[in-house]
Amino acid sequence: MAQDGSFNPDDHAVFTTDRADGRYASTRAYLHHIMKAREPRLKYNPAMSADSMKLWQSDMAQTMSRLMKHPDRDLSSLPAPVLVSEEQRDGYTLQHWELYPFDQAVVPFLVLVPDAVNTNNPATGILCIPGYGQPKEFLIDDNNPHAMARLYAREGYVAVVMDNPGQGETGDLEREAGKGVDLVTVGRQLLEMDWNYLGLSSYIGSLLTDWMKTQPYINPERLVVSGFSLGAEPLMAIGLMHPEVYAFVYNDYLCATRERALTMTKPDNRGNRPWPNNIEHLIPGFLLEFDFPDILAALAPRPLICTEGGMDRDFYLISGAYEKAGAPEAFEYHHYAKYADPSTRTYLEAAPEGINRDEHFRLANVDPPHHYFKDEFILPWLRHILSK
Amino acid sequence: MAQDGSFNPDDHAVFTTDRADGRYASTRAYLHHIMKAREPRLKYNPAMSADSMKLWQSDMAQTMSRLMKHPDRDLSSLPAPVLVSEEQRDGYTLQHWELYPFDQAVVPFLVLVPDAVNTNNPATGILCIPGYGQPKEFLIDDNNPHAMARLYAREGYVAVVMDNPGQGETGDLEREAGKGVDLVTVGRQLLEMDWNYLGLSSYIGSLLTDWMKTQPYINPERLVVSGFSLGAEPLMAIGLMHPEVYAFVYNDYLCATRERALTMTKPDNRGNRPWPNNIEHLIPGFLLEFDFPDILAALAPRPLICTEGGMDRDFYLISGAYEKAGAPEAFEYHHYAKYADPSTRTYLEAAPEGINRDEHFRLANVDPPHHYFKDEFILPWLRHILSK
Repeated sequence: MAQDGSFNPDDHAVFTTDRADGRYASTRAYLHHIMKAREPRLKYNPAMSADSMKLWQSDMAQTMSRLMKHPDRDLSSLPAPVLVSEEQRDGYTLQHWELYPFDQAVVPFLVLVPDAVNTNNPATGILCIPGYGQPKEFLIDDNNPHAMARLYAREGYVAVVMDNPGQGETGDLEREAGKGVDLVTVGRQLLEMDWNYLGLSSYIGSLLTDWMKTQPYINPERLVVSGFSLGAEPLMAIGLMHPEVYAFVYNDYLCATRERALTMTKPDNRGNRPWPNNIEHLIPGFLLEFDFPDILAALAPRPLICTEGGMDRDFYLISGAYEKAGAPEAFEYHHYAKYADPSTRTYLEAAPEGINRDEHFRLANVDPPHHYFKDEFILPWLRHILSK
Repeated sequence: MAQDGSFNPDDHAVFTTDRADGRYASTRAYLHHIMKAREPRLKYNPAMSADSMKLWQSDMAQTMSRLMKHPDRDLSSLPAPVLVSEEQRDGYTLQHWELYPFDQAVVPFLVLVPDAVNTNNPATGILCIPGYGQPKEFLIDDNNPHAMARLYAREGYVAVVMDNPGQGETGDLEREAGKGVDLVTVGRQLLEMDWNYLGLSSYIGSLLTDWMKTQPYINPERLVVSGFSLGAEPLMAIGLMHPEVYAFVYNDYLCATRERALTMTKPDNRGNRPWPNNIEHLIPGFLLEFDFPDILAALAPRPLICTEGGMDRDFYLISGAYEKAGAPEAFEYHHYAKYADPSTRTYLEAAPEGINRDEHFRLANVDPPHHYFKDEFILPWLRHILSK
């Protein structure tokens, strides 16, 4: 308590107890310590051999499949996707398609086919997954200078664009009411059915990945998944579950989500220590198995670019995995421009407990106002890895 | 859309689609229909035989155990609870105890031992579980005219009082900051660890139930669980998992929670159709197995009182189960005073979709301002069933 009697968050940044036996009466506090004591079962171990790493990767993939709980119905047992309409755009054809993943559902998606592509000259196919609040149309918007799918089409790649569930055309009353996106209710409904939001988004992405392999103008040996922000999560799930995907564009800061949850314990002025994200990010048990850096490490030796920084510790971990897999050059990462100079970055083996969101971003070398699709890094990198 | 262009919730009360194939693009809408199509596996079937009902009850108990995920450590493998202090109150001794369910945790609880009780005269023991926002001390408060535990002690019963996790002494910064209870973060943290809030609260309640059986001044043949509001949820879990509990006081309206979630689809003025409750009520997969009325039906033939109404349909269902179990007199229920006259109640086989919270309460015969511990029904009922 501050001297004037008001509540001072800094006095309560970490959990404390004044009991001689060290026990906590606060449920939030003791759960924190229980969670902290449970290291993820499949945490990447830099000391493992290359052979052990392959077994670990197989376990990673199986565990991700178990957590994602995709329905048994694969693309071949669903109604065939339908091309609804197409129109010529500047340098590419924009196709509007529909996928029918459930009896009750239609899931629209877009396909951008560059003019130079034809079945005699199949192209790289890139699955594009937007960020929170972005409809898929934002990724082709001429007014968006960093329009992921439009820029890929200009490069000559076939871009397939999905909505995150509950966004864009798959939203509920957003357009009528003018309200913001609500993924919490969709997330809740999925969790009630023993599923989860990432399970659904990765199922749709997985079906589209399979669909791309059947399209004659796409080279099935050159599939790429490109996720922005929220879309980087299905990228990770699809990555582990689809060994045939050739390369990955991870466009967000690399977040150690378990550590973030265990360190962002500083309360706000009202004494609230909220969880760092909403329940569309909740997959029960996920953090008992692995965290994001482990998942990216398990993608080795497949080409991977990370474009918006994070903790160097985590990049060293992933680099180590790529080296062990014999492909050190297949992993590339970039920090935000603000932290491009190594002397400006924070280097930590472990983030400290008792921080808030701003402090977390600072320690993770994140520059939130400059969160956008980093075509300046991604397009040259793709040209390079696809020229091989 | 209303004619003036503003958003009118009544126009969107239920999910609609203008597609000829009946499919929904809205994720929220198609998930609604998927969930609706999945009837709970263990839904009570009034047509089953008395023998089938016993097998069904066994399946209900096993399924509840699976969902509650209690740790393996039972009372005998934990440090013994400790009596910290005691003081004489008006007609009873108030004992402050501590339970140690995890290495990192202390969970305080209260025991009220009436003056007339001793080991030669062991008494009925009642586990008392408060509602949302109520510390356990509210249940003994002399200024609370409906103080559950104090009133039980006055009747000569030993009352054992726990906090719901994250409330009262087990809260985090509420006292320092003066903020309200936050069970959402505690619930989230549990879900991240593949557990759930009800799993934790019922684990603590379960340990205390086992502890009560070891106390020489409690008659282990006369254990009662009494839950108010939020506390009625652990009552249900403990009820199925502890066949040795003799009777149950369910002090809330009887809510068909699955139907509530599937019918409260009317948006607010911002177009939001929120889930009816917070994630401290979320148990992934629970509603695929059963709903509250099924659980109460599975308590037959053990004495049960419901004190704050609900839909007559659900009370008929439970009455039918008690009749089948050969104990029709063991189930008693009361409506709110406002709906005591049968002609004032709504009778529905199924609630309609497209309602909001107020409409739900009206159709379920609920009078929210009069939500309190109904000692006027409960105390006479307990005297009656315990005199047998």
